[in-house]
Amino acid sequence: LVTSPELIDHKGLRETLKEDTFARAKTILNGIDSRSTGAYTHSQGLRAIRENVARFITKRDKIEDEKLISPDSIFLTDGASPGVQNGLRSLIRDSNDGIMIPIPQYPLYSATIQLCGGQQVGYLLNEESGWSLEVEELERSYKEATSKGVNIRALVIINPGNPTGQTLTKGNMEAVIDFCERRDVLLLADEVYQENIYSDKPFNSFLKVADEMGKLETTEIISYHSVSKGFLGECGRRGGYFHLSPAIDKSVQEEFYKLVSINLCPNVDGQIMVDLMVNPPKKGDYSYDQYAQERDDILNSLKRRAHKLVSALNSLEGVSCQPAEGAMYAFPKITLPAKAVQAAQSKGLYPDALYVLELLENAGVCVVPGSGFGQKDGTYHFRTTFLPSESKMDEVTERYKKFHNDFLQRYA
Amino acid sequence: LVTSPELIDHKGLRETLKEDTFARAKTILNGIDSRSTGAYTHSQGLRAIRENVARFITKRDKIEDEKLISPDSIFLTDGASPGVQNGLRSLIRDSNDGIMIPIPQYPLYSATIQLCGGQQVGYLLNEESGWSLEVEELERSYKEATSKGVNIRALVIINPGNPTGQTLTKGNMEAVIDFCERRDVLLLADEVYQENIYSDKPFNSFLKVADEMGKLETTEIISYHSVSKGFLGECGRRGGYFHLSPAIDKSVQEEFYKLVSINLCPNVDGQIMVDLMVNPPKKGDYSYDQYAQERDDILNSLKRRAHKLVSALNSLEGVSCQPAEGAMYAFPKITLPAKAVQAAQSKGLYPDALYVLELLENAGVCVVPGSGFGQKDGTYHFRTTFLPSESKMDEVTERYKKFHNDFLQRYA
Repeated sequence: LVTSPELIDHKGLRETLKEDTFARAKTILNGIDSRSTGAYTHSQGLRAIRENVARFITKRDKIEDEKLISPDSIFLTDGASPGVQNGLRSLIRDSNDGIMIPIPQYPLYSATIQLCGGQQVGYLLNEESGWSLEVEELERSYKEATSKGVNIRALVIINPGNPTGQTLTKGNMEAVIDFCERRDVLLLADEVYQENIYSDKPFNSFLKVADEMGKLETTEIISYHSVSKGFLGECGRRGGYFHLSPAIDKSVQEEFYKLVSINLCPNVDGQIMVDLMVNPPKKGDYSYDQYAQERDDILNSLKRRAHKLVSALNSLEGVSCQPAEGAMYAFPKITLPAKAVQAAQSKGLYPDALYVLELLENAGVCVVPGSGFGQKDGTYHFRTTFLPSESKMDEVTERYKKFHNDFLQRYA
Repeated sequence: LVTSPELIDHKGLRETLKEDTFARAKTILNGIDSRSTGAYTHSQGLRAIRENVARFITKRDKIEDEKLISPDSIFLTDGASPGVQNGLRSLIRDSNDGIMIPIPQYPLYSATIQLCGGQQVGYLLNEESGWSLEVEELERSYKEATSKGVNIRALVIINPGNPTGQTLTKGNMEAVIDFCERRDVLLLADEVYQENIYSDKPFNSFLKVADEMGKLETTEIISYHSVSKGFLGECGRRGGYFHLSPAIDKSVQEEFYKLVSINLCPNVDGQIMVDLMVNPPKKGDYSYDQYAQERDDILNSLKRRAHKLVSALNSLEGVSCQPAEGAMYAFPKITLPAKAVQAAQSKGLYPDALYVLELLENAGVCVVPGSGFGQKDGTYHFRTTFLPSESKMDEVTERYKKFHNDFLQRYA
C-alpha cells in the first residue's frame, strides 16, 4: 500500500484506510530516500525501520541505556533463515569448527553447517522433563567434541523450541550464559517464536537475561526474529532481522555488512512487515482496538489448539507428548510395535518415516518424522503443528486417532 | 494489491484498477492454494508463475518443443544474486575447483567464489574491440589454470556486460558454446540486462543460440534474469529466477530443490513482480497502451542517456570509453598523470580509487573505481551509470568535466 503515493491519495483508498494506517505509510515512505519501495535500500535495511527494531528490543528487554542497542547492529533479512545462514557461514572457518545444536533441532541448522563444511555437535534435550536444556549435557557434548579436536565456535538455542515447543526458564538461561562465558562460545539465539507462548512461563530473550546478570557487554549473542511466526504468520513476505549484541566487536559488524552486501538488500515489503511487527498500533491509535482483538484472538486460539492437540495425543496408547509451552508444534514420542520397525527396515525407511507415510496415505494427515530433526537413539517421534483452524482440528484429531489405533493393530 | 480480495473488491479500488489488472490479481490469487500472498509457497516459487516464466523463455527463444522448458527447471529467487550464489556453491567442491569469470566482472562473482573457497580464474575482455570476448583468451585462461591443477567447473558470461556494457554477437556466442562443450564446463549466463539494449546488436540468450546450433540438449546452461533491471528496475522487490537448461540432469535439479528449500521460499511479492515481467499486458488489454508507452519511454531515454554520456566521456583528454551497447553502465578508461599515481600510492590507495574519491569530494558525483571490478594491469577505469534523469544528466556531466580537467591540472 505504500508503493504509490497517488494510490494512497486516491479518494477510494483514503476512505478505506484508517488514519493511523495512512500516517504509517507516509512515515515509511518518508524514511526512504527515493520515496519508492521499488529501489534498493541500505544492505542492512532501511535505517528508519532498524531504528524501530532497536526501540523494540530496548523496550522489550527493559534495557536502561538505549544507546546500547544501535540500529547499526541490526540487519534486516529475507526471513530469519538467511540471517542464520550468514551467522553460521561467518563462524565456520574449516572442518575442525563445530557448532553445538540441540537434538532435536530445526534442519536449517544441520543443513547449513553441512553446506559450510563445519561439524554438527549435538546436545540432547531431556524429553522426560519437558525437553529441558541441561547445562551438564552442554558440558558433556562440549568436552566430547573438544577432546576430538573440534573447535566449538557457537551454541545454538531455539527458544521457544522447534520442534519441541518448550520455553526456557530464566534460571536455565543464566546457566547457559555462564556456560558460554566459561567456554568462550558465541550464542546464536533463535527467538522467532517469542510471541507464541501458551503456558505460564514467560518468554525472556537471552539479551534481557544477560543484561539482568550485568553481562550485556561481555556476552556475545546473535539473536533472530521473524515476521513468519507469532500472530502475524506472514511467512511469504520473507521479513526478519538479526541483532548483534553490544559485546560483539564492531569489526565483526563491518564484516557482516560486507557479507550481506553481496545480496544488495532484503526485500522492501518484508522490511515494512518487520516495521509493522516491532511498531504495532498503540493504544489511542484508530487501528489499535482491531489490532489488539485480532492479536488476542489468534494467540488465544493457538493456545486452545495447543492444549487440545497435546491432550488428544496423550490419550492414545503408545503416544506421549510433552506440553506445548510455546512455538507452533507438538513433538510426541510414539512407541512403535516391533513388527512396524521390522517392516520399515525391510523397506529401507526410518520407522517413524513409515508411520508418517502411512498416516498421510491412510488419513490424509501430513506430519514430519522425528528422524528429520534428530532424536535419541531408539526413540521415535513426529512433529505436528496446531495451525489448522479450530473447526478442522477436531476432525483431523479424530482421523489421526483412528489411524493410530489401526496402525497398532496392523503391526501387533 | 493482490494481498486482499476484500480490498480489490472495494468500490474505490475497482474504479482505480483497469480491468486486466483486476483480472491479473485474481489469476495470481487463484494460483495460490491459500489465496493469500502471506503464506510460504513451493520452495521454487509459485507453479503458476513458473509456468509463465517457461512460456516466456519458450517464446523469447522460439523453442519449438515447449515441453523442453519445464516449470520444474525454473527457480524463482529473491533477485538474481541468491540464485548465482546457489549456482556457485553447488559447483565449488573444494579449493581446487575454479570458476572462469570475466575481467572486469561484477563483484558478486569474486566475492561468492571466495566465500565458497573456490578459485577465481579470470579471462580478460578486450577493451580495444569494445570489450569483446575472445575464445583464444578463454583457451589461454583455461590452459593456464588447468596446468596448475585447477578443475574448471564453470564459465561465467555476463551479457549484456556489467560493468562493461557490451553485447555479444551470435557468432561469438556459438564459439563460447563450442568452448564449453570442448572443455566440458557448465555455462553460467548472467542475462539480467537482456532488455537494456542501445545499439543495433540484438540480445540473444545462450539458450536460443544453443538451440539454433542443435545443441540444446547437450549444452549445460544456468541462466539468470531479474526484475531489478530492464525497464522495470524494481530492485527493492527482490524478484528473479534461474533456469536449468534441458541438458542439465534431473538429479541436479533435485539437489537445487533441496538447496533452495533451506530458505523455505522466495518472497511472494518478488515472485509476483517476476510474473509481471514475463507476462506483461498484451495488445488488446486495457493497460497495454500505457504499458507500451512507459516501456518505450524508459528504454528510449536510457538509450539517449547512454549515447550522451559516452560522447561526453570521449570528449575529454585522457578519457576513452567504449560504446554502451547494453546494460546500464559506461566503463571509461582514464589515463592518470604519473603524479596522481604516486599520490595514490603514498596514501595506500589504488590510483582509480584516489580519482573517484576526489570526484565525490569535489563534484559530489559518485562512481565506482575500476579496481573493484578488476582491470588489465596498469590501466585505470571507473564504472558510472546513466540512470540519473535526463534533466540531471547534463548538469552531472558538466560537473564531471570540470572536475576531470581540474584533476589533470592538479597532478600535471
